[in-house]
Amino acid sequence: MNASAPALHSRDGPVLALSGGIGGAKLALGLSRILPPGELVVVANTGDDFEHLGLSISPDLDTLMYTLAGIDNPETGWGLRSETWTFMAALRALGGETWFQLGDGDLATHVERTRRLEAGETLSRITDDFCRRLGVQTKILPMSDDKVRTRVRTAAGWLAFQDYFVRRRCEPAVAELAYEGAAAARPHAEFLAALADPRLRSAVICPSNPFLSIDPILALPGVRAALTACPAPVVAVSPIIAGRAVKGPCAKMMTELGLPVTAAAVATHYGDVIDGYLVDHGDAGTVACPGVAVATAATLMTSLADREALARDVLAFADSLRRSRAEAAGAPA
Amino acid sequence: MNASAPALHSRDGPVLALSGGIGGAKLALGLSRILPPGELVVVANTGDDFEHLGLSISPDLDTLMYTLAGIDNPETGWGLRSETWTFMAALRALGGETWFQLGDGDLATHVERTRRLEAGETLSRITDDFCRRLGVQTKILPMSDDKVRTRVRTAAGWLAFQDYFVRRRCEPAVAELAYEGAAAARPHAEFLAALADPRLRSAVICPSNPFLSIDPILALPGVRAALTACPAPVVAVSPIIAGRAVKGPCAKMMTELGLPVTAAAVATHYGDVIDGYLVDHGDAGTVACPGVAVATAATLMTSLADREALARDVLAFADSLRRSRAEAAGAPA
Repeated sequence: MNASAPALHSRDGPVLALSGGIGGAKLALGLSRILPPGELVVVANTGDDFEHLGLSISPDLDTLMYTLAGIDNPETGWGLRSETWTFMAALRALGGETWFQLGDGDLATHVERTRRLEAGETLSRITDDFCRRLGVQTKILPMSDDKVRTRVRTAAGWLAFQDYFVRRRCEPAVAELAYEGAAAARPHAEFLAALADPRLRSAVICPSNPFLSIDPILALPGVRAALTACPAPVVAVSPIIAGRAVKGPCAKMMTELGLPVTAAAVATHYGDVIDGYLVDHGDAGTVACPGVAVATAATLMTSLADREALARDVLAFADSLRRSRAEAAGAPA
Repeated sequence: MNASAPALHSRDGPVLALSGGIGGAKLALGLSRILPPGELVVVANTGDDFEHLGLSISPDLDTLMYTLAGIDNPETGWGLRSETWTFMAALRALGGETWFQLGDGDLATHVERTRRLEAGETLSRITDDFCRRLGVQTKILPMSDDKVRTRVRTAAGWLAFQDYFVRRRCEPAVAELAYEGAAAARPHAEFLAALADPRLRSAVICPSNPFLSIDPILALPGVRAALTACPAPVVAVSPIIAGRAVKGPCAKMMTELGLPVTAAAVATHYGDVIDGYLVDHGDAGTVACPGVAVATAATLMTSLADREALARDVLAFADSLRRSRAEAAGAPA
């Protein structure tokens, strides 16, 4: 190490994680458990958000909030544990729309959020308050307080995301994705500030669906540039393990979009946004992406210990990239 | 009986009942069980309706609907039986307003009604559809599809009804009542049509709170005149038994309004709107109201048999008034 390189304390500095729902929330939980309180900011995709039954529903925000509050439903990956379903049964009896499952407790989140949004509060402020009340110490930040809506082009035409994802169970083949409203939406100011923070330890792209969970975030004006200019290493974790997605339509969608279902294809998709790429041990040697450092880890998160271990591996990898970068900066030209 | 009097079949003709929530719903249930299907129309007070948590809530309509569907909660008198309360617990955890209890199943009614109202449907059409789906054969008609809101003047100023009734538990002394919007609201066309129907057997004013449940209906333009002109007997059942209200703030409110807490005071309050007044056996001989026939019955409805028995007594009383009226019309001048 060169004497002129800045001093590095690997446990210092905040970590920013970009995340969708289930898979991303697992890593976010791992990170939250190994980092000191206040040192993790999770930026949540809101492209899945929608209005249903007059309620404003933010699936990824809620999965993150419930997961980090320890009240998530580990069986479904969404919704609350110890949930009851009286509302849905009564709604069915009244002839209401029941294709989107809303548990009784979960409903409180949607009803209260909708009320507060209509009273003029921002989604981020409401999320902050909910997190505080639920004892979540991690900052969960909607990617934007402006409305972005993922749409999916299929043989049946352009579909609203939840229509595709839940009502049609991801069955229609995807030809194209669009993030309606993204071009005019402002990334949350704290999100951009975190990316520009010289103290930032790493920006982590969680193993979420790249097209459904991460691309909506990247579609916000200035986010790609901020990630590229970010002083800290940007590290992505592959959502593909041995040619399969752990959960959800990622693999099916990659095939439909004409991509090979490989960890490498995801790295290529992220391109120069990322500095490092963490793949599963089983995918070692399969990724060669110019300008992207690659490392391996056990990326399948089944237990809580798995989540923490992967979080440690991600940070160790990011710290190694940060050291290399510092050394390179300190070394003679 | 005079030969020229019209033939009377006491079981013929529809019955119209004016009702609030709990007490009125008991008699409405009794009437629904002894009348042929389709022969009962219940006009519900909507002055108690309000917007809460972004939801449109119609307490009296719902109590009537749940009672007539056989899914009411007999312990509370409001809400659903077999109810769960997960929503309220979750709402409390999020810091939401919890002074108005909303059960998980009950919530489906409010969410779906709100959605359909916002989609442009009328309250009466939605109520019709809900009733059909819940197997209610009685027609339940909101008094108006226009908004009427009962307000209560107290030492704390004018209060919205549910603020007075639920949040403040009827504690503030009532100085005055107002039915905001009533003067501009149109009584439901089917309500007025039923009152003018020559086949009408009786218009029954249920033993509901006169000030909170019946007066809002009477405040609608044309309703008093239609009741006065109604070809069928208008019969009220006293909500006061031996100087006490069976439930709710009626007795307390009468005292605060400077009225004696008697069955007679309620008859005087209704005045020339009613032709007949049914009081409890215990109040026999206490009512002398010019132009109003008085009869007695067991008016406390504890069991289902009580409800049916009172319903039979009400109709028998109405039929006797109808016969007297027919005889008077048929008799030589």
